[in-house]
Amino acid sequence: MIIQLDPNIASSIKHKIEMKLRTLGYEANEVKTLQGSSYLVAIGKNEFDIRDIGKMDGVMDIHRVSDAYKLVSRKWRVNPTIIDLGDGIKIEEGKLALMAGPCSIESEEQIRKTLEHLKANGVQIMRGGVYKPRSSPYAFRGLGIDGLKMWYELTREYGIKIITEVMQSSQIDDMMPYVDIFQVGARNMQNFNLLDALGQVDKPVMIKRGMSGTLDELLQCSEYVFSGGNEKLLLCERGIRTYEKAYRNTFDLNAIPILKEKTHLPVIADPSHGIGLRAYVEPMALASVMVGADGIIFEVHETPEKAFSDGQQTLSFPESSDLIRKLKASHALKEGF
Amino acid sequence: MIIQLDPNIASSIKHKIEMKLRTLGYEANEVKTLQGSSYLVAIGKNEFDIRDIGKMDGVMDIHRVSDAYKLVSRKWRVNPTIIDLGDGIKIEEGKLALMAGPCSIESEEQIRKTLEHLKANGVQIMRGGVYKPRSSPYAFRGLGIDGLKMWYELTREYGIKIITEVMQSSQIDDMMPYVDIFQVGARNMQNFNLLDALGQVDKPVMIKRGMSGTLDELLQCSEYVFSGGNEKLLLCERGIRTYEKAYRNTFDLNAIPILKEKTHLPVIADPSHGIGLRAYVEPMALASVMVGADGIIFEVHETPEKAFSDGQQTLSFPESSDLIRKLKASHALKEGF
Amino acid sequence: MIIQLDPNIASSIKHKIEMKLRTLGYEANEVKTLQGSSYLVAIGKNEFDIRDIGKMDGVMDIHRVSDAYKLVSRKWRVNPTIIDLGDGIKIEEGKLALMAGPCSIESEEQIRKTLEHLKANGVQIMRGGVYKPRSSPYAFRGLGIDGLKMWYELTREYGIKIITEVMQSSQIDDMMPYVDIFQVGARNMQNFNLLDALGQVDKPVMIKRGMSGTLDELLQCSEYVFSGGNEKLLLCERGIRTYEKAYRNTFDLNAIPILKEKTHLPVIADPSHGIGLRAYVEPMALASVMVGADGIIFEVHETPEKAFSDGQQTLSFPESSDLIRKLKASHALKEGF
Amino acid sequence: MIIQLDPNIASSIKHKIEMKLRTLGYEANEVKTLQGSSYLVAIGKNEFDIRDIGKMDGVMDIHRVSDAYKLVSRKWRVNPTIIDLGDGIKIEEGKLALMAGPCSIESEEQIRKTLEHLKANGVQIMRGGVYKPRSSPYAFRGLGIDGLKMWYELTREYGIKIITEVMQSSQIDDMMPYVDIFQVGARNMQNFNLLDALGQVDKPVMIKRGMSGTLDELLQCSEYVFSGGNEKLLLCERGIRTYEKAYRNTFDLNAIPILKEKTHLPVIADPSHGIGLRAYVEPMALASVMVGADGIIFEVHETPEKAFSDGQQTLSFPESSDLIRKLKASHALKEGF
Repeated sequence: MIIQLDPNIASSIKHKIEMKLRTLGYEANEVKTLQGSSYLVAIGKNEFDIRDIGKMDGVMDIHRVSDAYKLVSRKWRVNPTIIDLGDGIKIEEGKLALMAGPCSIESEEQIRKTLEHLKANGVQIMRGGVYKPRSSPYAFRGLGIDGLKMWYELTREYGIKIITEVMQSSQIDDMMPYVDIFQVGARNMQNFNLLDALGQVDKPVMIKRGMSGTLDELLQCSEYVFSGGNEKLLLCERGIRTYEKAYRNTFDLNAIPILKEKTHLPVIADPSHGIGLRAYVEPMALASVMVGADGIIFEVHETPEKAFSDGQQTLSFPESSDLIRKLKASHALKEGF
Repeated sequence: MIIQLDPNIASSIKHKIEMKLRTLGYEANEVKTLQGSSYLVAIGKNEFDIRDIGKMDGVMDIHRVSDAYKLVSRKWRVNPTIIDLGDGIKIEEGKLALMAGPCSIESEEQIRKTLEHLKANGVQIMRGGVYKPRSSPYAFRGLGIDGLKMWYELTREYGIKIITEVMQSSQIDDMMPYVDIFQVGARNMQNFNLLDALGQVDKPVMIKRGMSGTLDELLQCSEYVFSGGNEKLLLCERGIRTYEKAYRNTFDLNAIPILKEKTHLPVIADPSHGIGLRAYVEPMALASVMVGADGIIFEVHETPEKAFSDGQQTLSFPESSDLIRKLKASHALKEGF
Repeated sequence: MIIQLDPNIASSIKHKIEMKLRTLGYEANEVKTLQGSSYLVAIGKNEFDIRDIGKMDGVMDIHRVSDAYKLVSRKWRVNPTIIDLGDGIKIEEGKLALMAGPCSIESEEQIRKTLEHLKANGVQIMRGGVYKPRSSPYAFRGLGIDGLKMWYELTREYGIKIITEVMQSSQIDDMMPYVDIFQVGARNMQNFNLLDALGQVDKPVMIKRGMSGTLDELLQCSEYVFSGGNEKLLLCERGIRTYEKAYRNTFDLNAIPILKEKTHLPVIADPSHGIGLRAYVEPMALASVMVGADGIIFEVHETPEKAFSDGQQTLSFPESSDLIRKLKASHALKEGF
Repeated sequence: MIIQLDPNIASSIKHKIEMKLRTLGYEANEVKTLQGSSYLVAIGKNEFDIRDIGKMDGVMDIHRVSDAYKLVSRKWRVNPTIIDLGDGIKIEEGKLALMAGPCSIESEEQIRKTLEHLKANGVQIMRGGVYKPRSSPYAFRGLGIDGLKMWYELTREYGIKIITEVMQSSQIDDMMPYVDIFQVGARNMQNFNLLDALGQVDKPVMIKRGMSGTLDELLQCSEYVFSGGNEKLLLCERGIRTYEKAYRNTFDLNAIPILKEKTHLPVIADPSHGIGLRAYVEPMALASVMVGADGIIFEVHETPEKAFSDGQQTLSFPESSDLIRKLKASHALKEGF
């Protein structure tokens, strides 16, 4: 159950509500978001007339949510969440947000060329990794905070926003001034300490579905961040692990319409990691639009075959320009239906 | 290795080629198709100059094919296979074939209403089951051959073709006059005796991918039919079994562009069985078009909630009309890219 | 619901029971087994007092079974099914049945050497394939019925029984005189026509779990055979398909104690196909005993590296002798607990 | 390639080796373990005569290791790693280490009763969680550091060691004095920052296989810790995620003999999380012994039905005593083979 409180509620009144809930067999979790809202998320099983709570002082609204996740459920908040990155750049249902860039941030030249490419194609958000999760401890792990600072300076010249992965909570403070969207990687979907820490940050957070993460688990992971106090959330489908090895991952497009129905959060598709093979990124990206993705994130590099990582799934600039044109046409068609 | 023979080759000359292959360490499998071609599929591992065979009498062409499947490989036959159903009805790359109908054939009234709906929407192929594979022995198993005959008579009035599942080889002869495309169901993908038997039939065969079938296995299953003598083949993606239970199956759209590259056979998408939930059949069908499916097969029923089987994934007539309109627009957009 | 009928029930009395069931909202499926029992399996959802049926003439016993499968459920028949192969050879709970032999039957010499090995080690059932399901149409498919006849003659000299795979119903009659246990392979678990046909045979049938078969589906497949009229059934775990590729299949030992609780049928473990790597067949076989398997089936060959098929998972004779000794000791320990 | 260095090597000599490696196309990663060894792990692809390096000053030994993981490979170190916890308590191949305790540490009384139980049954290591990873943010998350301190004091009275989960690197310092083995949970298998941090700790670390972790990935994760400087490592199989839902996880016993061949690290089996159902923990634990596990970790509670978490898979004290007796007998049998 979600009880929306008057943001200026007196603590004695709030206490009275909590006591009432306890007598009804419910434990109340208080959530105050950095975006200014105040909730009690009440967990329990008994049946009772919610109007008993709804009419109490300090209660603005009350919703029964039967899902395991609550605050991220669309049963409660029917209007889709809009992520506002400032400077008029938004991610929202009905528009198609594009995010593109290399797997790894490598050099000033690489960044600058990518920014030129993005600018020319109207892409407003650049992806790239400065902290790279790698299967082997001996592989390249990214340029780190210095790479991020350099990247940040360059993006501001172009008016382009940054999305990049944060791997542990101790990195958050250092990264904070230079990041527009924090990305939680697939391997960290259930890194609950990281999710807790990101709940205390007033920056958007995009959580990628884990390799064997269920949709319900993904939603509960976003509930961690929301209940920690941060409402600025996005989800991302990037492929799951199955028995089939003809491609890198089984990019699960089924997830997108189902997530869109279950949650008010924007849902982004990552066809690059999804299918993991350059030749098929385009069809999977176009398909993502048709199933209702609110945005597409993909990998692009001036010379994919020389990229520090993920070259086999990275588009060249001409391929990327071509894809963007087709994405826009597909999105326009779909919106017109 | 595939050696295409002169269809009128003398058996003594063919024998000479087989002997030559044997000395090179290859076993030759002779394939004569009902469609009039003659091949030797040679299996072996040694390296040799294929021109030694290519220049022999009776050899029209020779191709090295490294895949486990041979005759269905696009490495050998680059032009896509066209399935001609007669009366100007074809399934071919670049067009979008539509097949729709109920899960089970139930009654004359049901068939007639469906045919009216299909006719009105320009759909030329009707699907439906008269032999139903069911998990439980106590469930409805279909109307059988009498249902098929009734269905056949009705379709001819409308100029609409039939695709229906055959479950075992002993059914083939009886079904033969009334079927335009034999469907091999997911559970029978590796029913090799059935595949062998369908290799001897001059009717198109559509093989559905098994619940845990790899793309390579699916292609080898179609190789069974082709090497048995029947070139009229289609493949169908209908969802695989994974850990995720938020939907019925994981409809694997990744499979479609990869199959299209590996084989010259048409690839059909079945979003109804794929995601298995009515509300999401439309987006998954549109996505199938964008990834390159040559056709869409879906379930439709006048009153889905009263269907004998699969009601939860079956579209109503208005939903179906709406989908068909969007499919055509999506296909036109894609072809124009 | 399972209603056990008096085997000599008059049809008018049976009809009365069926009518009564229909008024209660249940459809009755009549099952007469070749082993002499007579049942009505009633499928429906309404609640009623089962004594209303229980006290009717001709009813010997009545059981409510909530599982999707009925006749194979241990909720109904608590005593384990014993498979009697004649000549004092039985498969039953509390004993450990051993079945061993090559993947493919190859030659008289091969059979004879295997029989000598089995005899020397007290193994009473020999496995081997004469009809081989193969992924590729160009691979060796077995010696067929002639191989089976030769094999049969030889086994009778040694007093050893035969278990072998049947691939389609049209093979049953020919194979019948020469087979002691029909095996349904993993790829045919849901070949419902084959299961129906085996329901009409008075010979034991062992059904292998499909590569992505759930335990519930496996049980429903055995229900097909039982409801068709054949109570002589065994189940076999042989590995499932997962994302892990460090071995051939994920041999699922979890399945065994769970199946043992759900059904009264004997459960056999096949570690050879399970893990699919010779070096690990022994530990997986011993583990199978500890989780409660009623029997072990494994592959053995005089010269595994020369076997026509499955050599990589086949034990040599000395390895097999060693395994059998350890299996017996493990089983004795477990029974003593 | 692993180059074992003289621990007292001069840095100029080491530099010479690194330069030589670079000219051969190899990048050298220096590893100095807290246990006193010094290595260069050289990553590259060219072929060369390893004796060219082997004969250089300061090089004690050199091994070519083709696996993606190096230091944890048994190709290099054939003798099994022994984990010495002090006070004569060791985990080593050929012995069977037992670790048992509740899912969550709950109270002094609970701890004391568990310790009495363990002591009476000769179990020397107690498991329990004070930081609990939970799918829902609203679930009980453990008693934290204060619970750990209380637990620690009690265990010392009984001479029993502690294994408990660490969830993020910032917890390590606080936990350090009170922990005998740090456990990395399944959800954190690829939390590379945590693995890096545990590489700098002179305490044993047990890494659990992730829900969709391959064996190769698990080994690479342990390589993170080893290459970070900590050789005291154990691996743990705890079940993977598959399509089958008849149990909690697919406890993958295949993993154990394969890991034992690939690595010199001890391998522990966790049947409680593996199959996740109390009635089947015993058979799966006994099976774990037969496939070669070096230890068993399982959940036990005085009153499982009242446990704060995981009650459905937790044994009672009598069940636990019974299991321990059978585990010892099974292990004795197996060692005697």
